Amino acid sequence: MASTSRALTRLAGPQLGLRAAQRQLSAVPTVASIARLSTSSTRRNLLLASNLTSKTRPTLSLSRQTRRAYADAAPVKKPRKFRYFRWAWRLTYLYVLGSIGYQKNLVILGTGWGSVALLKKLDTENYNVIVVSPRNYFLFTPLLPSCTTGNIEHRSIMEPVRQILRSKKASAMYYEAECTHIDAERKVIKISDNSDVKGDVHVTEVPYDMLVVGVGAENATFGIPGVRENSCFLKEIKDAQAIRTKIMDCVETAGFKDQKPEEISRLMHMVVVGGGPTGVEFAGELRDFFDEDIKKLVPEIADSFKVTLVEALPNVLPMFSKQLIDYTESTFKEEHIEIMTKTMVKNVTDKYIEAEISRPDGKKELTRIPYGLLVWATGNALRPLVKDLMSQIPAQKDSRRGLAVNEYLVVQGARDIWAVGDCAVAGYAPTAQVASQEGAFLARLFNNMAKTEALEAKVHELSSSLNVQPGNSAQVVQEIESTERQLRRIKDIKPFHYSHQGSLAYIGSEKAVADVAWLNGNLASGGKLTYLFWRSAYLSMCFSSE
Amino acid sequence: MASTSRALTRLAGPQLGLRAAQRQLSAVPTVASIARLSTSSTRRNLLLASNLTSKTRPTLSLSRQTRRAYADAAPVKKPRKFRYFRWAWRLTYLYVLGSIGYQKNLVILGTGWGSVALLKKLDTENYNVIVVSPRNYFLFTPLLPSCTTGNIEHRSIMEPVRQILRSKKASAMYYEAECTHIDAERKVIKISDNSDVKGDVHVTEVPYDMLVVGVGAENATFGIPGVRENSCFLKEIKDAQAIRTKIMDCVETAGFKDQKPEEISRLMHMVVVGGGPTGVEFAGELRDFFDEDIKKLVPEIADSFKVTLVEALPNVLPMFSKQLIDYTESTFKEEHIEIMTKTMVKNVTDKYIEAEISRPDGKKELTRIPYGLLVWATGNALRPLVKDLMSQIPAQKDSRRGLAVNEYLVVQGARDIWAVGDCAVAGYAPTAQVASQEGAFLARLFNNMAKTEALEAKVHELSSSLNVQPGNSAQVVQEIESTERQLRRIKDIKPFHYSHQGSLAYIGSEKAVADVAWLNGNLASGGKLTYLFWRSAYLSMCFSSE
Repeated sequence: MASTSRALTRLAGPQLGLRAAQRQLSAVPTVASIARLSTSSTRRNLLLASNLTSKTRPTLSLSRQTRRAYADAAPVKKPRKFRYFRWAWRLTYLYVLGSIGYQKNLVILGTGWGSVALLKKLDTENYNVIVVSPRNYFLFTPLLPSCTTGNIEHRSIMEPVRQILRSKKASAMYYEAECTHIDAERKVIKISDNSDVKGDVHVTEVPYDMLVVGVGAENATFGIPGVRENSCFLKEIKDAQAIRTKIMDCVETAGFKDQKPEEISRLMHMVVVGGGPTGVEFAGELRDFFDEDIKKLVPEIADSFKVTLVEALPNVLPMFSKQLIDYTESTFKEEHIEIMTKTMVKNVTDKYIEAEISRPDGKKELTRIPYGLLVWATGNALRPLVKDLMSQIPAQKDSRRGLAVNEYLVVQGARDIWAVGDCAVAGYAPTAQVASQEGAFLARLFNNMAKTEALEAKVHELSSSLNVQPGNSAQVVQEIESTERQLRRIKDIKPFHYSHQGSLAYIGSEKAVADVAWLNGNLASGGKLTYLFWRSAYLSMCFSSE
Repeated sequence: MASTSRALTRLAGPQLGLRAAQRQLSAVPTVASIARLSTSSTRRNLLLASNLTSKTRPTLSLSRQTRRAYADAAPVKKPRKFRYFRWAWRLTYLYVLGSIGYQKNLVILGTGWGSVALLKKLDTENYNVIVVSPRNYFLFTPLLPSCTTGNIEHRSIMEPVRQILRSKKASAMYYEAECTHIDAERKVIKISDNSDVKGDVHVTEVPYDMLVVGVGAENATFGIPGVRENSCFLKEIKDAQAIRTKIMDCVETAGFKDQKPEEISRLMHMVVVGGGPTGVEFAGELRDFFDEDIKKLVPEIADSFKVTLVEALPNVLPMFSKQLIDYTESTFKEEHIEIMTKTMVKNVTDKYIEAEISRPDGKKELTRIPYGLLVWATGNALRPLVKDLMSQIPAQKDSRRGLAVNEYLVVQGARDIWAVGDCAVAGYAPTAQVASQEGAFLARLFNNMAKTEALEAKVHELSSSLNVQPGNSAQVVQEIESTERQLRRIKDIKPFHYSHQGSLAYIGSEKAVADVAWLNGNLASGGKLTYLFWRSAYLSMCFSSE
């Protein structure tokens, strides 16, 4: 048992670099159950298992039993008795495993980057997979800004979940519903159909053995009054459609008979709050839209069209290098996109924004910015479901930005719950790239867990045949050893580590900026060629099946 | 003057085949002003004109003067005096015509088949064209049913009005607004911006010299309770989008966990009310959608999918031949689309329809039809604007289905107002084909009127030069005669006559039915080849620039 403990420590202990390694041990139950089999104490485990009789979920109970042992770090040795019942149990176990093949309920919440990456790489044959999300498609969010101006048709960046599920070997369920509550104690979630068409049954429960929370985040408004009522967000397809409608509406209203010049200027002023990639890309797209469409369609009022990017920090694109920030800022200047940095929005009305500008001399000044369209792209806030779950787990009480997870993406302080993407705090930026890698990591983890369990079952079987027919024991022992070698190979899962593939942002006029990891150094680039790279990178991601 | 009167009678009189020819004479003012110049009494007209002094709108006043003469059918002869002022007037007239070039305000309401056909064929150089419509694009309505199921992307059947206007030689204005009132007395319309984004000015007036009403119609609900609240229509893009969303919503809700079989059947039941081409095509599209998508996406509940077409009359597609009706009905049977004829909807709730079925034995029976999606496609009702205009015109009091127009599409009893499409009653079915031909007819009429006025001005000029320089009078007289010959050629506009190009309807499973005029007979056809014809006919209409 000592060797197993060591193996576990290696998997979930010091390398995690987390102070609360001890607490986390109890939070890595399934990884623990993998690690368990890396030992040569299979026989002893069998003996342990043999004590469990008349259970309908033998595998589950087995791993729970073992887990508890690790969690308490003081394995309880069971007395060697009831030898006679052992055979009966083993036969039952094999029967259940082989014919009924009980599969764990793996419930996946959400259909964003994290959940879908998990789904795509997951071997669904090993689990009873149930996907729950109010959105029945995956959305290729980086191209959402292009949707607003009609550069890209929205249906080309949507991928139906049912289509993804259909492509899997084993069938998986999908429910279009919102998960409104996770009962971590009972291992049950509550789901609710919040769409317009409701059936007689529209609230129900789904039990889980394993739960992945990938519900993403809400739009942060920082409690600024008027934001939710007056601005457009840029998170879902309906947001992009609303923005598109509103841009055209502003232009048409500006072109209304007898409209005064000042009012035309207001209506044609498009303000974007938030200098991250989404805000910057949207500002660039707006400018392109102006050059390609507005100029031709409404030449008489086209000169009033103006784009302003408002950012509270001292510069835009904080995740990019200084060189690229400068390039973006100078390109925006050429494109007549005004950048207002160090500008904090304080209040939003239906026709203007009130903001506080910090001057270089340190003085603060309140200003009014009249606008026609206001797009709010300032980042993430917790969803109610995530808040609710966090409030149930004492270990989460210090976490502010989402569910704190360990390096195996296990929600700290919870049992059999993992989290990916923007609702999880794993120490990385809340980007599609991170979420996608997290989802893929969980798929590898779950696939391995299933393979481990299968090999584990094989070892069980071989061990029992060893006892039943002692004749060819040499050959069986050899087989057991070979299977255990296989087990050792696959059980060795390293903790999640994000590999940054680079940051890309489109900045309008067919120019883009990119920070790409290149060999060991970083390649910072900007311009038309980068745009082509941006385009091809996104298109190739769009069309790749995995 | 007698010859002019005869000419007019020929244009607007007996051939019209309308009893109220006398009343209509007053309603064809501009056609009258064309006819006027077909006479050789130009000299006398000039004399008449010369009596009009110090007018800022000479052409307009001139034609009004003449029109009144025709309208009263008893031209008033003005005494030959003020000969001296005549020269002054002529010079003023020529100056105004030549340099300022006053153009009549031609206001076109609507951007449907009628208005856009008019716009596309209109020579905008001759008028100050102003288009007013709440919808800033033309919609290719026959393909709208295909949009609901995603067979066709909605943007591919939209054509921006501003793009159409941009392609014209002379600029034309467009206001995205609803015309809320026509003041036929003051010749002014009231327009209102009813969109979400409103400017400081959002209600204003537009004066017109000529007005074309092409605002279409509303959906008829026959006052049946619950229709407007619970059903989807199929007239605009937003309707198609709403239907698409609702179909998917019904399917997802049917697939919700623990949904009962009966409720699944209800949710998967798609009911179409109205057996015209729209209803029939939509039922066919729904069936295709089932075969191509639903079956694959939700195989577990696909068998519950059902389409029912409800029609109050004894059969569907009343405008088609018996043979094609039979073909459609048998195809629908194969496609498992149930047709319920002689079924009058009496009441609609959110989950079922109450309808009265007339049995072959004459007995009537009330039935309840549970549904998931209800699409209402039963035809047209008057728009408030049209009702309002009709209430202002005594001659319209007996008209029920829209603005009664004469064979030049002049609104009976009104001055300088024409009507096209579904809001006009010219004795034809309210179809896209009729509206489109009406619009094209008005474009020819207006182009001719402008040419006539130009030639009229030339005759004026020549006549005056005849008086100023009596030297080369023979040559001038010859020129006058040649111009008058031209005038006679172009003024000869025949009344509007609808030429039926055939009826086409898609009935699902890549089959279509068509009644097409072929040489002198009628070709009735149905089946796969007809589908290809349907497809190519519509696609060629989509891509043709005119």
